Amino acid sequence: MTQWSDWLTAQAEARDRAGLTRRLRSRPVDDPTIDLAGNDYLGLARDPAVTRAAADAALAWGAGAASSRLVTGTLDLHAELESELAEYLGQPAALVLSTGYQANLAVVTALADRTTHVLSDAHIHASLVDAVRLSRAQLTVVPHSDIGAVVTGLEAAAAAGERAMVLVESVYSVLGDAAPLRKLASLCLEYDALLIVDEAHGLGVHGPGLVASLELAGLPHVVVTATLSKSLGAQGGAVLGSVALREHLVNRARPFIFDTALAPAATAGALAALRQLIRRPELADVVRERVRELADALGVAAPAGAVLSLPMSSPDAAVATQAAAASLGLRVGCFRPPSVPDGISRLRVTASAGVGEEDWRRAVVTLVDLMKEHQ
Amino acid sequence: MTQWSDWLTAQAEARDRAGLTRRLRSRPVDDPTIDLAGNDYLGLARDPAVTRAAADAALAWGAGAASSRLVTGTLDLHAELESELAEYLGQPAALVLSTGYQANLAVVTALADRTTHVLSDAHIHASLVDAVRLSRAQLTVVPHSDIGAVVTGLEAAAAAGERAMVLVESVYSVLGDAAPLRKLASLCLEYDALLIVDEAHGLGVHGPGLVASLELAGLPHVVVTATLSKSLGAQGGAVLGSVALREHLVNRARPFIFDTALAPAATAGALAALRQLIRRPELADVVRERVRELADALGVAAPAGAVLSLPMSSPDAAVATQAAAASLGLRVGCFRPPSVPDGISRLRVTASAGVGEEDWRRAVVTLVDLMKEHQ
Repeated sequence: MTQWSDWLTAQAEARDRAGLTRRLRSRPVDDPTIDLAGNDYLGLARDPAVTRAAADAALAWGAGAASSRLVTGTLDLHAELESELAEYLGQPAALVLSTGYQANLAVVTALADRTTHVLSDAHIHASLVDAVRLSRAQLTVVPHSDIGAVVTGLEAAAAAGERAMVLVESVYSVLGDAAPLRKLASLCLEYDALLIVDEAHGLGVHGPGLVASLELAGLPHVVVTATLSKSLGAQGGAVLGSVALREHLVNRARPFIFDTALAPAATAGALAALRQLIRRPELADVVRERVRELADALGVAAPAGAVLSLPMSSPDAAVATQAAAASLGLRVGCFRPPSVPDGISRLRVTASAGVGEEDWRRAVVTLVDLMKEHQ
Repeated sequence: MTQWSDWLTAQAEARDRAGLTRRLRSRPVDDPTIDLAGNDYLGLARDPAVTRAAADAALAWGAGAASSRLVTGTLDLHAELESELAEYLGQPAALVLSTGYQANLAVVTALADRTTHVLSDAHIHASLVDAVRLSRAQLTVVPHSDIGAVVTGLEAAAAAGERAMVLVESVYSVLGDAAPLRKLASLCLEYDALLIVDEAHGLGVHGPGLVASLELAGLPHVVVTATLSKSLGAQGGAVLGSVALREHLVNRARPFIFDTALAPAATAGALAALRQLIRRPELADVVRERVRELADALGVAAPAGAVLSLPMSSPDAAVATQAAAASLGLRVGCFRPPSVPDGISRLRVTASAGVGEEDWRRAVVTLVDLMKEHQ
């Protein structure tokens, strides 16, 4: 294997030279570090009601669903989660998939083909980028939240008499800003286009998400995708929209059809987390208050989501500050290329409601000190 | 929403006319049906040691891993599973992903680009088909197990001086035949090409899989993918190969990087199932004996895997026979377009070692009677 090993070696060397080599570090079960790096925004992943529901489901249903949803993998549990999820998000129907990545792949590839015009915001998540590529649709990358550019794209599709689709996130992960959903929904209605909104970072932190909060849920031209692995603390993804859309996905979405159903424990965990989230709306208040408090302390603008991004001078500076935080018992994340839309490396701090009050106080003070030294 | 709803309606009508509309039916937790439809080949999904390990992991680690593997989602559990999986399959390294679909997407898209020649067997799984499409590689679909066509493709790549990759499954799901792995491995060595073997249906039913059984494991030009949701009874997928390959995937495979880590319960479930599989080699013997016994009783050739495919005269005949089996307390699957490589609908019967001896006897007799009536 000469060609392939040479190529792998060259790729590794290029990464090392750019300072972009990533390594996996595993954490122990009793890790005492304060976690401000994960996406467990409401602290529900380790909530006793949620872990108990997950454990009970594994014992009752098995460790896996044993087949694809269409063969024999659809459990009453999946139906229950889909029904309660749809109700909470104000949508007619929901379809649950094994990952958020596959939920995004599913909805775009099942709806878009070579004739479809996809207007994709420059900051959308990698899973939506991959979804469009896989669909082979006609792609226009729209400058971030640029309504004028969306209009231009929609006019081009209308002139061609072809279906158009606009892809956005309700809250963008890296910059933490919200999409202009009202304007986009009204434009898509005017141009007979579909608006697909990824609520990965909106669901939970904004209760049922921004689409529902802005009373756009249930409009037939607004489709929502969500993840079960962030505020819902488990694993998996979902697509929410009309009954006709759900039926279409069941029949045509290859990332749904050719995949084993979401495991019972993750399904039950997400369902229990959803119920907690509904019963305890104060969890969302806590995370939103915390992120505002931290932003104020650091003198930066508060984001729309639970994640605060702190621009750093270089990938190395980001990694060094992350290591300094770790040595002080604080785990924060890093955004580095290619995970940033503008090439700027950032520290990534999640204001999770799952961190204890005292730990949170300590984290804020530590971060303020660190940023003074390192920024 | 006129264009989009018209389009969805037209798509649904076309499906109905072709008799290919699929609907989800959910099953209850106390379902008394004998399940010969799933992929829980060894019956480990509901093995008490496996479900206990899954439940304990949910309680100890949480319902989800809370972030991507590269941020803070890598648990000691993942490292443990990867290490034991690599050892059992005779590979230097393993990387675990959230689904088998994403494992296939990951390895192909991280290795192949527009200049890579991909020679893809006509019968490979949809996830590999999608993977190649997403990679934008130069694709040649090779007639099923046609060694001559593989040689032609490898010569073309060699003449162009470009990297080549051959994609096969060790055991094909629909027809149940095995790939000519020895020949393919020696050809790929000769032409400096990479052989990627999906062991979805080989692992477990053939112990560590066909690649290991044929002593091809650990060769640097043979890469293996596997699923944790069939013989290992949980959820997820894995890529196995060299340490350099694993590092490359960690850094470059978007379906790995941009996805929440596999949930603790699924990870621990797969690990416990792997240990059961190693300790109880008789499980693989049972499933292989059963599939031979059933094939004999039905007068068809025995497959290399655990799934027996019975060709039916039409999609409707397949569905009718499936319904007749269900009314007799027996769940079998259906292969219908687009899940068949040749357009022929089939009944799909899994000879799972997880079915009790008495139920299995009854299932064989019932199936023989049904096939007399319906074929």
